Amino acid sequence: MTRKWIKQCINAMPLADEPSRIAVQQRAENILRPKGALKALDDVAIWVAQWQASSQPAIHRPAALVFAADHGVAQSGVSAYPTEVTAAMLKAYQEGKSTLSAFAKIAGATVCAIDVGVGMPTNDIQIESAMSKMRLDDAITSGRSAVESIEADLLILGEMGIGNTTVAAALTAALLGGEPNQWVGRGTGVDDEGFGRKVLAVERATSRVANISDPLELLREVGGTELAAMAGAIIAARMRCLPVILDGYVVTAAALVLFQIDQKSLDHCWIGHCSGEPGHRKVLEYLKKPHLLDLNMRLGEGSGAMAAVPLVKMACAGVVDVPTFAEWFGS
Amino acid sequence: MTRKWIKQCINAMPLADEPSRIAVQQRAENILRPKGALKALDDVAIWVAQWQASSQPAIHRPAALVFAADHGVAQSGVSAYPTEVTAAMLKAYQEGKSTLSAFAKIAGATVCAIDVGVGMPTNDIQIESAMSKMRLDDAITSGRSAVESIEADLLILGEMGIGNTTVAAALTAALLGGEPNQWVGRGTGVDDEGFGRKVLAVERATSRVANISDPLELLREVGGTELAAMAGAIIAARMRCLPVILDGYVVTAAALVLFQIDQKSLDHCWIGHCSGEPGHRKVLEYLKKPHLLDLNMRLGEGSGAMAAVPLVKMACAGVVDVPTFAEWFGS
Repeated sequence: MTRKWIKQCINAMPLADEPSRIAVQQRAENILRPKGALKALDDVAIWVAQWQASSQPAIHRPAALVFAADHGVAQSGVSAYPTEVTAAMLKAYQEGKSTLSAFAKIAGATVCAIDVGVGMPTNDIQIESAMSKMRLDDAITSGRSAVESIEADLLILGEMGIGNTTVAAALTAALLGGEPNQWVGRGTGVDDEGFGRKVLAVERATSRVANISDPLELLREVGGTELAAMAGAIIAARMRCLPVILDGYVVTAAALVLFQIDQKSLDHCWIGHCSGEPGHRKVLEYLKKPHLLDLNMRLGEGSGAMAAVPLVKMACAGVVDVPTFAEWFGS
Repeated sequence: MTRKWIKQCINAMPLADEPSRIAVQQRAENILRPKGALKALDDVAIWVAQWQASSQPAIHRPAALVFAADHGVAQSGVSAYPTEVTAAMLKAYQEGKSTLSAFAKIAGATVCAIDVGVGMPTNDIQIESAMSKMRLDDAITSGRSAVESIEADLLILGEMGIGNTTVAAALTAALLGGEPNQWVGRGTGVDDEGFGRKVLAVERATSRVANISDPLELLREVGGTELAAMAGAIIAARMRCLPVILDGYVVTAAALVLFQIDQKSLDHCWIGHCSGEPGHRKVLEYLKKPHLLDLNMRLGEGSGAMAAVPLVKMACAGVVDVPTFAEWFGS
């Protein structure tokens, strides 16, 4: 069973490489610039080094996986867009016509879009479990397989699915508690009435699962197949020591499932950006992870993570390609 | 006289191209993504379009100019580093060994470092005018000439000069008023005693010029040659309709001189990042300009502006290379 696989992975997951951390941190402190002047980027370089187990961190082959799916809850009018948009966008990713593709070209990254349920919506989380156990397993396996076969040294995760910020809010609320409405935002730009329906949907979903505490069971109850696929992708990346850049609210909600099982399970993940979704900022604070960009983006599809990729490359180059004071002045 | 040239430029400066603004703004509103989902980046694309006078904004040849100089005030122990570091860093830029060079390689940009007074410090701003009128003219001309001969479609401005955050603070305080110490930060990481000397230096410099209001005269009195060169570079770029990405506190202080002459004079400039210098954030608020990055960087040399270049490229690609809803769905 795939959920068992996730728990086995978490029990056996590799840890960050300590010698590489020490080597790059020491180098960063002695590089030809004022000490700490680029701390936020040096920390990124150290993080890459830890997962590449190399004192010479570098990104040569960033690759994005975009998981697309539909959601039963979308029928309740929680989004500004009709569900048909999911399929149209999937086609745009596959044909390289999306914003993500345009960004990826500049970042030197590849993009692969994966259909994990487009046109086959999950059940309505307001009234029943989103997925059967078998469907959850299949979705997790999709994410796992995609990562196990990818050629990459940095993984960008993105998603597309009309209605999935409602799902992200429900899952986050179920995992972290608190008033459901604090986790709800405007998504792709829903109007006031739609926002009211969205809050109601999250309230209904969370009260339905109020007695459940197992994170993977909550993923099955109020999640979506693309979120399950991303959870599988993240932990599969961990088993390969492949560093991951997380995108917005939906990706982070999927990651939160793993974090709630074991807080160390996201050590190989960095946050690309803080989006315009208020719930996203709150989750990032909970995760205690810094973000690279803060541009009020609310597109999803991995675009915010992709926008941060050049910064990750620069962070690495900033400790590898620049001499230390000793190297420059000779000593 | 060069100061006269600046004022002539400002009186005759080209304005942003309105048809390009309208074309790209309309396109951005109809692109295949939720309306406003990338507003912060769309605004950058619109800005590039306005100065390229093109409905297809794109950045192919970003180029950085780094102006380096020494400062008499550095003898008062206002910096964490000795003045000899300016010359060493100039050599690092020229040999492609700086952080800026490492970033530029990833951003696809060129770097040119220009000596406008390394080893020839200005006078101590605490007790006398930093520069003679002739020296100010020469420095402005250096910046102007560098821009007039550069091949670029995006200009990144940076600087290096031990002591120049003291100068930036003095100039900003003189231009904008208020308590001098609110404009003073730690620069490259000066200790508490050095910080006290830095505040004192800014207080002495600003009280010495309290009766002067002409921005260019204040630049001559409490500025530096690299700041004068950058002011010349910025206005020369404007005359070519060349968009400029500003870096940190020192660059912004130089730009502020022009802004205080005519607020429209910085319309062709975007802010690459908000640095860790508290005075920088305050100036950005005064300029009412948004910034792309906020990573607490405090390196200078144009590194924060260079780090933002891929975002500018992505912003343009995001409106040019992505279809509109109508183009994608056919209509």
